[in-house]
Amino acid sequence: MARWEGNARGRLEQAALHLFNEQGYDRTTVAQIAQHANLTERSFYRWFADKREALFGGSEDLEKHLVAAIDAVPADTGALPTLLAAFATAPEVFRSRAFLRERSAVIAANPPLQERELIKLASLSDVLTAALVQRGCDRQTARLATDIGMAVLRLTTERWMADERAGFTQALSTSAADLLAVTADGVLPGSVPAQET
Amino acid sequence: MARWEGNARGRLEQAALHLFNEQGYDRTTVAQIAQHANLTERSFYRWFADKREALFGGSEDLEKHLVAAIDAVPADTGALPTLLAAFATAPEVFRSRAFLRERSAVIAANPPLQERELIKLASLSDVLTAALVQRGCDRQTARLATDIGMAVLRLTTERWMADERAGFTQALSTSAADLLAVTADGVLPGSVPAQET
Repeated sequence: MARWEGNARGRLEQAALHLFNEQGYDRTTVAQIAQHANLTERSFYRWFADKREALFGGSEDLEKHLVAAIDAVPADTGALPTLLAAFATAPEVFRSRAFLRERSAVIAANPPLQERELIKLASLSDVLTAALVQRGCDRQTARLATDIGMAVLRLTTERWMADERAGFTQALSTSAADLLAVTADGVLPGSVPAQET
Repeated sequence: MARWEGNARGRLEQAALHLFNEQGYDRTTVAQIAQHANLTERSFYRWFADKREALFGGSEDLEKHLVAAIDAVPADTGALPTLLAAFATAPEVFRSRAFLRERSAVIAANPPLQERELIKLASLSDVLTAALVQRGCDRQTARLATDIGMAVLRLTTERWMADERAGFTQALSTSAADLLAVTADGVLPGSVPAQET
């Protein structure tokens, strides 16, 4: 097979994930990943700074996609519905369900990768908050809506990955309903004990 | 002044924070911190693994305190109200407002410290979720309630730090009301566009 570069990035991601799962993240080298994808190490470094980043390429795609999707929501939409409408389009840039499931398993098995994932998610939150502020939302509301939206997104993705037949939009609706159930359960100001400090 | 060890930990935290602010985090050494607190380096290492941890001692106190506070909430209370009731008691273990404000400034100025803070907050979330599960809450609801609760706690702490006259419980009530306003703004399942993937 020739060293054909079509979809080099996707092939490198697949190869990396396959090897991380098969022989462990720490024992996998960039040389092995490139070889498995039938590409050169040089091609690898054209796409990724290091082997770790082969797991996080999707985060940047998602970030860009969601900012564009937020901009496309009608201007008079509230902060949280704006985020949920944008999230509903996320599968357009998702890797396959099988890929994301394997990726989760690799990350769950490796604390430094978990930390990297936290940082990427925090960066996504910052970007989404900024996009809401850009639309005229005040910063505090934008931040709160983003934190809540990210909680719904996390639950949605978990559900969607766990069940092969689950549609993403359906999982998103179920998770939004769960959000309402959790908040309906008594968070009114008066429900907080009235001791003062 | 004798090398009196009373409240050594608090003095070391204060000394570290003072020096981080005055001369920068990177340029501050453990030797300088110990000297500023009129203690030995050996005392420092009795309390902290390294200079970074002098900023995060409060996180562990808070974690332990909140787990105990959750256990003290009546058993039939919902997940989110349980967390909010526990959060209302958080000032019992807080450092002073001035300390927390300075600490925030040091962390905001240093990306590796921001990452450390993210990791500590994620660890706190895990512990709170586990405490809710322990009380009989299902894992998904516990996780969602914790994510939402942490969003409210973040906003509350921001408010409380920013305004010297703000009571913590009052800030918590205001933030809980903000949560209701954000979620009331149209997250019902039907409000998510009905495209399927």
